[in-house]
Amino acid sequence: MKDFSYITSAHPAYIENLYTEFVKDPESVDADMRRFFEGFDFAISQNNGSTNGTVVSGTTVDTKQLDKEFAVYQLIQAYRRKGHLAAKTNPIRERKDRHANLDLKYFGLEKENLADEFFAGKFIGLGKTSLQKIIDHLKKCYTASLGVEYSSLNDPERIDWVTNAVENNMLQPVALEQKRRILQKLNEGVMFEKFLHTKYIGQKRFSLEGGETTIAALDAILNTAADNNVQEVVIGMAHRGRLNILANILGKTYEQIFTEFEGTAAPDTTMGTGDVKYHLGFSSEVETAGGKKMHLKLCPNPSHLEAVNPVVVGFARSKADVIYESEYDKILPILIHGDSSVAGQGIVYEVLQMSDLKGYYTGGTIHFVINNQIGFTTDFDDARSSDYCTSVASMVQAPVFHVNGDDAEAVVKASQIAMLYRQQFNSDIFIDMVCYRRHGHNEGDDPKFTQPGLYALIDKQPNPREVYTRWLMEHGEEGAAELAKEMEKKFWTDLQERLDEIKQNPLPYNYQKPELWWQSLRKAKPDDFDKSPVTAISKEELEKLFSAIMKWPEGFKPLKKVEKILQDKLKLFDDERKLDWATGELLAYASILANDKDVRMSGQDVRRGTFSHRHAVLRDEINDEFYNRLSNVAEGQGKFRIYNSLLSEYAVLGFEYGYAMANPNALVIWEAQFGDFGNCAQTMIDQFIVSSEQKWQRMNGIVVLLPHGYEGQGPEHSSGRIERFLQMCAELNIVVTNITTSANFFH
Amino acid sequence: MKDFSYITSAHPAYIENLYTEFVKDPESVDADMRRFFEGFDFAISQNNGSTNGTVVSGTTVDTKQLDKEFAVYQLIQAYRRKGHLAAKTNPIRERKDRHANLDLKYFGLEKENLADEFFAGKFIGLGKTSLQKIIDHLKKCYTASLGVEYSSLNDPERIDWVTNAVENNMLQPVALEQKRRILQKLNEGVMFEKFLHTKYIGQKRFSLEGGETTIAALDAILNTAADNNVQEVVIGMAHRGRLNILANILGKTYEQIFTEFEGTAAPDTTMGTGDVKYHLGFSSEVETAGGKKMHLKLCPNPSHLEAVNPVVVGFARSKADVIYESEYDKILPILIHGDSSVAGQGIVYEVLQMSDLKGYYTGGTIHFVINNQIGFTTDFDDARSSDYCTSVASMVQAPVFHVNGDDAEAVVKASQIAMLYRQQFNSDIFIDMVCYRRHGHNEGDDPKFTQPGLYALIDKQPNPREVYTRWLMEHGEEGAAELAKEMEKKFWTDLQERLDEIKQNPLPYNYQKPELWWQSLRKAKPDDFDKSPVTAISKEELEKLFSAIMKWPEGFKPLKKVEKILQDKLKLFDDERKLDWATGELLAYASILANDKDVRMSGQDVRRGTFSHRHAVLRDEINDEFYNRLSNVAEGQGKFRIYNSLLSEYAVLGFEYGYAMANPNALVIWEAQFGDFGNCAQTMIDQFIVSSEQKWQRMNGIVVLLPHGYEGQGPEHSSGRIERFLQMCAELNIVVTNITTSANFFH
Ligand SMILES: Cc1ncc(C[n+]2csc(CCOP(=O)(O)OP(=O)(O)O)c2C)c(N)n1
Ligand SMILES: Cc1ncc(C[n+]2csc(CCOP(=O)(O)OP(=O)(O)O)c2C)c(N)n1
Repeated sequence: MKDFSYITSAHPAYIENLYTEFVKDPESVDADMRRFFEGFDFAISQNNGSTNGTVVSGTTVDTKQLDKEFAVYQLIQAYRRKGHLAAKTNPIRERKDRHANLDLKYFGLEKENLADEFFAGKFIGLGKTSLQKIIDHLKKCYTASLGVEYSSLNDPERIDWVTNAVENNMLQPVALEQKRRILQKLNEGVMFEKFLHTKYIGQKRFSLEGGETTIAALDAILNTAADNNVQEVVIGMAHRGRLNILANILGKTYEQIFTEFEGTAAPDTTMGTGDVKYHLGFSSEVETAGGKKMHLKLCPNPSHLEAVNPVVVGFARSKADVIYESEYDKILPILIHGDSSVAGQGIVYEVLQMSDLKGYYTGGTIHFVINNQIGFTTDFDDARSSDYCTSVASMVQAPVFHVNGDDAEAVVKASQIAMLYRQQFNSDIFIDMVCYRRHGHNEGDDPKFTQPGLYALIDKQPNPREVYTRWLMEHGEEGAAELAKEMEKKFWTDLQERLDEIKQNPLPYNYQKPELWWQSLRKAKPDDFDKSPVTAISKEELEKLFSAIMKWPEGFKPLKKVEKILQDKLKLFDDERKLDWATGELLAYASILANDKDVRMSGQDVRRGTFSHRHAVLRDEINDEFYNRLSNVAEGQGKFRIYNSLLSEYAVLGFEYGYAMANPNALVIWEAQFGDFGNCAQTMIDQFIVSSEQKWQRMNGIVVLLPHGYEGQGPEHSSGRIERFLQMCAELNIVVTNITTSANFFH
Repeated sequence: MKDFSYITSAHPAYIENLYTEFVKDPESVDADMRRFFEGFDFAISQNNGSTNGTVVSGTTVDTKQLDKEFAVYQLIQAYRRKGHLAAKTNPIRERKDRHANLDLKYFGLEKENLADEFFAGKFIGLGKTSLQKIIDHLKKCYTASLGVEYSSLNDPERIDWVTNAVENNMLQPVALEQKRRILQKLNEGVMFEKFLHTKYIGQKRFSLEGGETTIAALDAILNTAADNNVQEVVIGMAHRGRLNILANILGKTYEQIFTEFEGTAAPDTTMGTGDVKYHLGFSSEVETAGGKKMHLKLCPNPSHLEAVNPVVVGFARSKADVIYESEYDKILPILIHGDSSVAGQGIVYEVLQMSDLKGYYTGGTIHFVINNQIGFTTDFDDARSSDYCTSVASMVQAPVFHVNGDDAEAVVKASQIAMLYRQQFNSDIFIDMVCYRRHGHNEGDDPKFTQPGLYALIDKQPNPREVYTRWLMEHGEEGAAELAKEMEKKFWTDLQERLDEIKQNPLPYNYQKPELWWQSLRKAKPDDFDKSPVTAISKEELEKLFSAIMKWPEGFKPLKKVEKILQDKLKLFDDERKLDWATGELLAYASILANDKDVRMSGQDVRRGTFSHRHAVLRDEINDEFYNRLSNVAEGQGKFRIYNSLLSEYAVLGFEYGYAMANPNALVIWEAQFGDFGNCAQTMIDQFIVSSEQKWQRMNGIVVLLPHGYEGQGPEHSSGRIERFLQMCAELNIVVTNITTSANFFH
């Protein structure tokens, strides 16, 4: 059973019969129906003390009445499915009419029924109540500030979960403490921009203004995460609001930020070109609202929008493997997107397509879109053909929460729900926060050249902090109104304090194990490029490893052909003391593994190898089972992880780069099918691999294999574009190696 | 109103009331309901001669009966929505259970009802008939060889159209003539591979074997296209089955193909590296089954999978603009994908995201996936996280026809429907033909290393020609069985003839206008690189153009700031006889336009210009209307088309490259936001722009603008990677220009 359609599309009389059976013997009906009826009974018993059965199957409700009950239930379902099309998610202007069809008439109900009471109210937790109240409630859940898009989901458990979360969690009143937190975060978000606007007038900062609620949202995600077992969060994002997030989410001090701000770039003291301030990464240890310690990392990124996505997920996966023993609940990747870039860059598709693959799984990414309805000067309807900028989410059945960025409480609640969903189901989920951009693309840019109409509206819009403060004053209970006033005052004093440059204290920070490993490594020196290090192993060791990889377990039945291949290799070694190319390669990995280091490799068809040479993983002829030839090379060996990738280069290389970034103690390899396809991932090479040390003082041990040769396979199989790599060699950034023999490959 | 849910989710009693009203006064109910009831009446009157109203609102059908009627209708809807999950689309193995939930019990129906007759049968064109018959029919439509996935559609007209096409068109018996055509195409498809297998044994050809029905499908698409106003078809595809398609769809002769086959590459007689045979393009004029002449083009492509997609759509758009006066019905792009590549390459997402954008619209692309369930050695569940390889289609609400490649008639019908849909709605549609790959990735490759289980099944599978022939013998009426025998014989004689190398005649070919334009151009010579051509225009002409671009129409109200900018430019010219950079650029375009040539430009934010300098298009402050400053520069001028692109580089540059390929008489420009972002489109540069002349003897006039400079904007805003372009200069392939002044820009 997939969703509630088993109720909505079922015939009422049939349901009634089933219910009768259920009353007689609960076990007689199938599990989903049983659950359904149990809920039904529960609600009834709560709301008017009736006992099982009598209400529905007895005389109180006749068939006609029951029919109407189900009509109301259908209306509820329609709100759940299509409410997002009518939700008031846009703080600035009316949305297009997207034909949600939620009028009473579509359900066989009429105005006159509004006063009638329906048991179906229980489905939204109200118990028996009037249709009017039910609709009011549905509107609150589904067409107010939050539009939930989850009809692409197939799993009934997830559907129920989201439904319940939206209809219950979302409606919990926000505690005063939480309101304070939201206001505080809005204060901080707004203040930071005001500070910059005053202190660094005219400076390009890609302000978050119009989208400051992002700060409250991220804060909520982190707090919820920490309360639910997450120990570390890795964030990838672009320019928009980055400094604000560094200050208010990662706890980087104003002083730290503005030391960098003085110049346009932050050069390393010894070398490096540095990078613009809104590209730098940062790590911190924060204490969450619930008093939990949490490790935060904002990845450094290039200007190239969305390019950091695979790096973030690869990084998260690596840490999950090396620190958290593959408990994906403990580490969470968050990707923050712009509306135009998430809709336009192919890498978004590739990374999403990885989300549930064995080799690339991270337990789910939270996608947060700062949807300011515009990309630089480009209207959203020139930026996408899809209805929403997040429409790609349906490809992997990821729910999307479209939420009005001016309703801070709705944003915070949606963020909490999204976080809980991720923890519950370990898969991707999207928050599409619809907001606006107060200024031009950057602060020097006049948006009225291109969007005069929209910006006439934006000019009149108070900031989210003011919106929430006013709202609290007008709608809050007394405590909340008081709080609003108090926070309003605090806002101005804090801002003044900051402007007077009162110092903040940097947070204390404890290095993680892999970070210490990184620190123990020194940077490359020119000498290193003059000689190869000694990597030889003893003959005994080699023989031991060799014989280990030529075996397979008892009971495993490889193809005859494979058996033959391995026998030939044994013979070659025994008779001529020679090892072929593939053996040289596997022995290289084996010797590293035996040294208790991990090796990870991915790329298209790497398990067998494009040239049918590697056969790192064998397959049983009878039952299709796998055997990893490097899994039994030594006692206490490292892990050999090898995955056939999806048919992507950009995302896969990015993932492996991120994987390597997290851990210097693993050999991480990406192999292109042919070297020539490496240019599909050119951005990863240019913006990360060859330049990260210069820009961000990040070393990275990724190894890229680019097989190629003049073998008549034509223009795109002949060149790894070595000349391009050579052209990019500078400042000891990479090693380009031309491997020609198996001995060469081995050490 | 969006879909049939207005019926399924409505309450039967309500529908009955409405119906009563409708009988009284048809105009009293809303248009969709009216249409619904009219259909209902019509079916009833056809099936048992009853008159309006009496059947439903009279006594014949009581409420209970009507309830059951609607239950049956709900069941019909469920088949329409979820039938694809249960369809038998896989010719080789069972599909996973994907929980379609189509059992009677979900609809309040029981086994006992199977014999009952229902009016609802009319909804699937059967009139009043038994539930059993209805279900049989639904199974034929929705869970047999075709799985239709169209629940992402929102437009009721499209939903109705697809429904009707699947339930009616699909069920039309296939005429003997058509069966002959199908068999003939299967014969041709299979024969070609057998020929190669015999003549060129061991040669890599990326055979279509297992997916030969592709030939019948494409043939059907082309015939249907020609009968529906399409005059030209542009195809983009990869390696799989390409030679077969060239031979059997484009009419390239065996001889032509195998002349190229003798070497591994096909060098130009005078120069060029050539390319492998399965990358070359081809154009032809074929006569379709219906006797229509049709222009076909298979675009040349590099190995880089899916890279040709934007080129194909750009090419089609260009031809639509230059030959067909933007009648998109006359030219059709077809993209043929592999299942792994369509699921893995980000460019697929980018191109799909362009499909409905003003600047990139082509009237809809037909996507045909040769889904052989495997990518090289990679299992499909390592290649995607989504359910289907085509799941991205839902992003733009494109229907998907999943169809069993061994049911040739189903494939052909689905192809016809897809073609009609494209012509009707001018938007994208997908055919996902599930088939298999008889051999390894290429013919030298053993698939049993990696998929022993699957290939044990494939070994036993007869080819699609045999499958269809047998099926006809067993199921066909007498004529069909006869036909099958006759075609079987023909197959073997034809094959023998081919093996004996009896010559085919190449098709005659008439060059199109733009092709003649191309032919009139000579290739570049070394001298051309020594001096700049004279491009100056007279002072009068310049002044005329200058004053033309500084005006706007009566009634148009630009921003005050824009007015000021243009006045400054006028002043600069009047006082100092100087023109700034932006004016130099626009004048260059204006002078080309005045020469009756078209100019097209796209890229991120190009209308205003990234640096707020261009202002090629102004916007009215009051009503947001646009004014194109280059639209009134001279009598009978060319068209200036300028579009802000979506936030993509790869797809957009590809599109413009394709656009330029179709027409040498247009200046086609792609501008990167900053030159550094050009590497996102590195594949387009490497595989097309710098190498197409060498590989495919294609010239291309595309101009790429890569603004950059050391202005403190950091690492990704400083370099157009000029050194890389210089490195790629060879054999007079490109001109790299460093523009420094506006005079420089102008000529
Ligand atoms: C790959 C890439 N292409 C182009 C750019 C140039 N660019 C920088 S910001 C921007 C617009 C971004 O719009 P959106 O994603 O909506 O984010 P916003 O700035 O509105 O927050 C563009 C095109 C870039 N940085 N990266
Ligand atoms: C961008 C790119 N990456 C990798 C390759 C190498 N490659 C060639 S064919 C192939 C597998 C293609 O699988 P699929 O798309 O399912 O098509 P099939 O060959 O099965 O028809 C790969 C990875 C390529 N040609 N292009």
